[in-house]
Amino acid sequence: MRLRNKPRAAGEIAANPQYITTTPAEFKGHWQSKFASAQPISIEVGSGKGRFIVEMAKAHPERNFIGIELQPSVVIMILEKQLVAQLPNLYLIQADGGELTDFFAANEVAQIYLNFSDPWPKNRHAKRRLTHQLFLTMYQTILQPNGALQFKTDNRGLFEFSVISFNQFGMQFDELSLDLHHSEVTENIETEYEQRFSQLGHPIYLLVAHFTH
Amino acid sequence: MRLRNKPRAAGEIAANPQYITTTPAEFKGHWQSKFASAQPISIEVGSGKGRFIVEMAKAHPERNFIGIELQPSVVIMILEKQLVAQLPNLYLIQADGGELTDFFAANEVAQIYLNFSDPWPKNRHAKRRLTHQLFLTMYQTILQPNGALQFKTDNRGLFEFSVISFNQFGMQFDELSLDLHHSEVTENIETEYEQRFSQLGHPIYLLVAHFTH
Repeated sequence: MRLRNKPRAAGEIAANPQYITTTPAEFKGHWQSKFASAQPISIEVGSGKGRFIVEMAKAHPERNFIGIELQPSVVIMILEKQLVAQLPNLYLIQADGGELTDFFAANEVAQIYLNFSDPWPKNRHAKRRLTHQLFLTMYQTILQPNGALQFKTDNRGLFEFSVISFNQFGMQFDELSLDLHHSEVTENIETEYEQRFSQLGHPIYLLVAHFTH
Repeated sequence: MRLRNKPRAAGEIAANPQYITTTPAEFKGHWQSKFASAQPISIEVGSGKGRFIVEMAKAHPERNFIGIELQPSVVIMILEKQLVAQLPNLYLIQADGGELTDFFAANEVAQIYLNFSDPWPKNRHAKRRLTHQLFLTMYQTILQPNGALQFKTDNRGLFEFSVISFNQFGMQFDELSLDLHHSEVTENIETEYEQRFSQLGHPIYLLVAHFTH
């Protein structure tokens, strides 16, 4: 991956407050002010180079999208895409996705996407997995009633863990695929990582679920 | 599959009431009378040629096992194994597994096993799948509180359907594997079908879950 040096990335981020912030807690409860229209907000936790969130924003002008990515040198790759596309329904956050309840008010979010999150394969790191109950508690707080959580991964261990985690948390499953690229799912916007790994023949796993309370 | 003709199968079944019945409703609530010792009862719905239930009975003398198989010409293959092994903790039912609540009293069963059940791939046949909610309702009735349902299959579509079905019914997941033969599961007794298909490189899926009410 091509990585810019950190000072340059910080400069690019600071120069474009219309598209990105490093202090998202300031906008808690007021995210609609960042968009051309007040529309349901979808967020992606861990946007990487941003293909997914940018293509989703293009495909769904009737929704607003926020991409969250911790690494400054990575998030500016999304920023550069947005500087070209200038989508009125896309905004970026450079910050740690582990603090979501500091960034969003209760019920402020309509959809959450987790794509190819770090599997943290060692048991002692289970709490760092974005599908651990510690994170589910945060998603539940910021999601609207019946708001959906969509999770994609090619990591079998992480998917097995996540299915059990979602179920034991009391979430209700809406959709499940154990081979997304050979399924009847109608819309699937691929991440950069997904494009690379599905070409190698890895199955892509999908789970869509919602909280029931 | 080698199939005996039906009259011969019926004769063999009728000649061995100590090991098999075709009228299981008679024993509802009294299954312990069929075994040497009163011990927790596990049942398998759709036992096929019986490798699983026979090997389970051998491996777990501290539990009682009942294999249920509809086809007379198939169930006698299990009967013939039992005529050799004479296991004191194994009994067979030749009848339709779709009538379980006629055969077993509430809370009479400690464990239910479903192994490589017919996938009934067409949507209009979904109600015939042994993991459809119509069957889950029966399993819930006959299972003891916290009694487990263990399901194995190599059929991706059936597994995807079943995970959603169990979840939406409110079952709690205990164990999940998307590639059982490359997992850390300690005990796995294979069915005849499983031995054949896993050799072809098909992943075997496993879900263990229990009812919470």
